[in-house]
Amino acid sequence: LAIILYDLVGADDRRFSPFCWRARMALAHKGLDFETRPTRFTEIGRIADGSQNRVPVIEDGAQMVADSWTIAEHLETAYPQRPSLFGDTGGKHLARFVKHWVEAIVQPAIITLVVKDVYDRVLPEDKDYFRRSREGRFGKSLEDVQSGRDERRAALSRALTPLRLLLQEQPFIGGEGPLFADYITFGALQWPRVASPFRLVNDDDPIAAWFERCLDLHGGVGRAMPAAA
Amino acid sequence: LAIILYDLVGADDRRFSPFCWRARMALAHKGLDFETRPTRFTEIGRIADGSQNRVPVIEDGAQMVADSWTIAEHLETAYPQRPSLFGDTGGKHLARFVKHWVEAIVQPAIITLVVKDVYDRVLPEDKDYFRRSREGRFGKSLEDVQSGRDERRAALSRALTPLRLLLQEQPFIGGEGPLFADYITFGALQWPRVASPFRLVNDDDPIAAWFERCLDLHGGVGRAMPAAA
Repeated sequence: LAIILYDLVGADDRRFSPFCWRARMALAHKGLDFETRPTRFTEIGRIADGSQNRVPVIEDGAQMVADSWTIAEHLETAYPQRPSLFGDTGGKHLARFVKHWVEAIVQPAIITLVVKDVYDRVLPEDKDYFRRSREGRFGKSLEDVQSGRDERRAALSRALTPLRLLLQEQPFIGGEGPLFADYITFGALQWPRVASPFRLVNDDDPIAAWFERCLDLHGGVGRAMPAAA
Repeated sequence: LAIILYDLVGADDRRFSPFCWRARMALAHKGLDFETRPTRFTEIGRIADGSQNRVPVIEDGAQMVADSWTIAEHLETAYPQRPSLFGDTGGKHLARFVKHWVEAIVQPAIITLVVKDVYDRVLPEDKDYFRRSREGRFGKSLEDVQSGRDERRAALSRALTPLRLLLQEQPFIGGEGPLFADYITFGALQWPRVASPFRLVNDDDPIAAWFERCLDLHGGVGRAMPAAA
């Protein structure tokens, strides 16, 4: 029985949620059968018993698991014979540190660069919700949040320095191969790739080469999702 | 035979180098016998065969090892039966990511807050060297670099957010106990503790509580060094 992944969807079947990408890459890493259920922002409350308010959520047989971190832990525990997402105990601490770095520093920097572009690509039924919730959070219009992004792009690049230096030494955050820490960071960059034509990282940046490697992982599950034009 | 650690020294026998603190905590973590050799900036070139230009350097029997990361790797390889500095392979990746984060983000933010205070505490013989080299790097006077630090302190606090969030979940970066990743970060904060009276972190910050735990580790080797008044 395939695992079901409730996956945020935008217009043209675009899947851009960084957190859903973490879960999807984790499922692919484990080599598990799964199918995605495209879920609009305003449909999340209708998943199963209606107790969920964020995606990703997975259904693995009778078990429902929410939150990308908890999903990774579930997969690691339930499928210990499959390739590990953490490598070992220390690898879990790596993923945890990277998670906080991505969520506190990287994703907040990215959202201000692309939020209006994301809005343009959410489904018509979700547009009101998206604009209202995000404008409430930022205290200004999506257009104002995104404006002047060319200057802020350099700040993102500086914030990514630790990752850049690491990837000058080794092909993945997890070392020779990818671990969940890679997928957390990959999700943060797959999100703008799918939802915005704005280029965040220069082609000659070691981060761009790593991102291309990630897109090719597990049969190219990341690359199969088209980049925004 | 005790291992010798060449350790940067300031006035009043202050040891403030963040990199030397990494090495010293690593030696203490391993429970190894070691003695420190206080070394002035302008004496580094006289260590052993004169090939060194930075500290820490250790002499472990016939072996001379330079660079705090290489020292940690050496200790891990040479003393595998002692408590591990990396925990396991994934823990080494954790330490590597944290190292780049500390060196690219944290330490560059800290140096602008305390560089003049550090200058005030280097030995008279080192003052010219310290001022010249640092002012060359910054392109302005030490006084100008440090001025206006009260505003920049908030930027450091924001940069430390990933660490703060992590330490709300677990007592050490390495999980239940400290690993080399903790010592890398500890070194970055022990440096201003020893070399400046300026308070970088609020008392109620989870980072402050973690730092206090680190000061108490291994018989209080960190706390034994007095804070700057």
